Amino acid sequence: MKKPHFKKIVIAGIGLMGGSLGLAIKKARIADTVVGLARRQQTLRQAGNKHCIDQGTLSIAQAVVGADLVVLAGPVRTTPDLLQAMLPYLTFGCLITDVGSTKAELLNTIYHQLDRFQKKRRKTDKKPVFIGSHPMAGSEKAGVLASRVDLYQGALCMLIKTPKTPVAALNRLQGFWKAVGCRKVKVVTAQKHDQWAAMASHLPHVVASGLVNQLIDRSRQDNRILEVAATGFRDTTRVAAGSPSMWLDILQTNRKEIGRAIDQLQRKLDKMKKLILRRQGAALLRELEQASEFRIRMENSKRGR
Amino acid sequence: MKKPHFKKIVIAGIGLMGGSLGLAIKKARIADTVVGLARRQQTLRQAGNKHCIDQGTLSIAQAVVGADLVVLAGPVRTTPDLLQAMLPYLTFGCLITDVGSTKAELLNTIYHQLDRFQKKRRKTDKKPVFIGSHPMAGSEKAGVLASRVDLYQGALCMLIKTPKTPVAALNRLQGFWKAVGCRKVKVVTAQKHDQWAAMASHLPHVVASGLVNQLIDRSRQDNRILEVAATGFRDTTRVAAGSPSMWLDILQTNRKEIGRAIDQLQRKLDKMKKLILRRQGAALLRELEQASEFRIRMENSKRGR
Repeated sequence: MKKPHFKKIVIAGIGLMGGSLGLAIKKARIADTVVGLARRQQTLRQAGNKHCIDQGTLSIAQAVVGADLVVLAGPVRTTPDLLQAMLPYLTFGCLITDVGSTKAELLNTIYHQLDRFQKKRRKTDKKPVFIGSHPMAGSEKAGVLASRVDLYQGALCMLIKTPKTPVAALNRLQGFWKAVGCRKVKVVTAQKHDQWAAMASHLPHVVASGLVNQLIDRSRQDNRILEVAATGFRDTTRVAAGSPSMWLDILQTNRKEIGRAIDQLQRKLDKMKKLILRRQGAALLRELEQASEFRIRMENSKRGR
Repeated sequence: MKKPHFKKIVIAGIGLMGGSLGLAIKKARIADTVVGLARRQQTLRQAGNKHCIDQGTLSIAQAVVGADLVVLAGPVRTTPDLLQAMLPYLTFGCLITDVGSTKAELLNTIYHQLDRFQKKRRKTDKKPVFIGSHPMAGSEKAGVLASRVDLYQGALCMLIKTPKTPVAALNRLQGFWKAVGCRKVKVVTAQKHDQWAAMASHLPHVVASGLVNQLIDRSRQDNRILEVAATGFRDTTRVAAGSPSMWLDILQTNRKEIGRAIDQLQRKLDKMKKLILRRQGAALLRELEQASEFRIRMENSKRGR
């Protein structure tokens, strides 16, 4: 796949994701200019000092005029308002994407915004194209100061396709994510994305938070239990340290699928509990063996890739 | 605390735990002889080659005669039978301990064994003293070839005290675990131990296995979900790779407490699910914040120690 080229890429929201994206775009030399849009001058200064962007601005109009790619990289809950404010200034045919961890609810809002906006325009005007992205990269750290040129290196990126998504734009966006380091770009529906993310990422966060809060409850009766929480507990709950406000957005914008994933885990726990309490050793061993074999294979395939 | 000294220490069962213990005992120079007892000649040869033991034998009688410390380091389910076979040959006053991850059920069996054995003896004979140990060290690897001199370095060790536990023997055993590298030795009841271990270690294993098996179920419908299971999922499920037979022993010998811990986690998950589905953002954010703050503190305190 040929590397795409852009005249002006706008990164709207310059935290860990946006800052790292700027570094990777500049390294890949796929844009004439990288413009950072932020709400605070300090962020622009920090992004400039880290060479994440070529130019910075606090003005939405100034940022997006003439851009051929806009990446919405701020918090999910602010994304629709930011997009709404951009619409009047976007160059026709501009490609817009985001980096959020949940898709169906957000994209639904965004598609409606674009449709409403389009109705006010002349039919012949070329509509800006929005395609949702979810590059599965991140860290427990946040903010532009934590940004790294290799954040997207080797990551999986999911792109959301609808029946209306123009193929040329989709290909161009695929090329973009490959160029900034993603190992693989997968095209899926928003629903599939949210189902998979619920089970593979959001549920583990809910569980890790639950385990930590359960330990806190118990430690109120006797805090000696805290010393007993060793490596296994630390590994299992590591993700719970992640940004509460970011995770609130995620949990609140993928409610239905996360609810289902919790239900399924509850049934698994019921089953394990029954096998334990009813001394069904052979069946319990099978559960443990299946999980162990799979988990060892998972570790090996990660090392091998 | 003065380092204790032993004439003959027997390590019965030479896998990761036993082999590493031998290395640490020899490094600390707290025994005239370290004798390994195994069921297979190959294990003794491997333990000898790795210098885990000074002598090895397949004979229980030969191993324990004249020993002043016996450490039962084999699988929990084989421990009572092994001890039973040893009893006739143990030197009076010999200190016996184990390294198992669950305590109440095993120790109950062992105390009964010792009582029955004692009844057949002259009252004046000094009974062998059993004190349960749980050094919280380990690895996903197993077997004598994986043993390391520093396995116990910095670990917490729990010792199980009953009203009948002789203080002198307890102190001597505390000194032993400190000498092989444990950072701290905590004296607790078997019940407290099992409650804490259920929540801090056994429950995370059940949950991790459940999450993996849930992913397997889902992947049977569409295996593309496997690619989506990223770092967060890997961390949260790492422990599930552990030895199924060892974990079967653990789950089966701490049934009641693990059952309770699962119930409590299920209540936490119910609560999180309600907060998510009913859009109670403020309360959900509090849950996430509490977990995140605590988990960050936990990581920092580990680094600081």
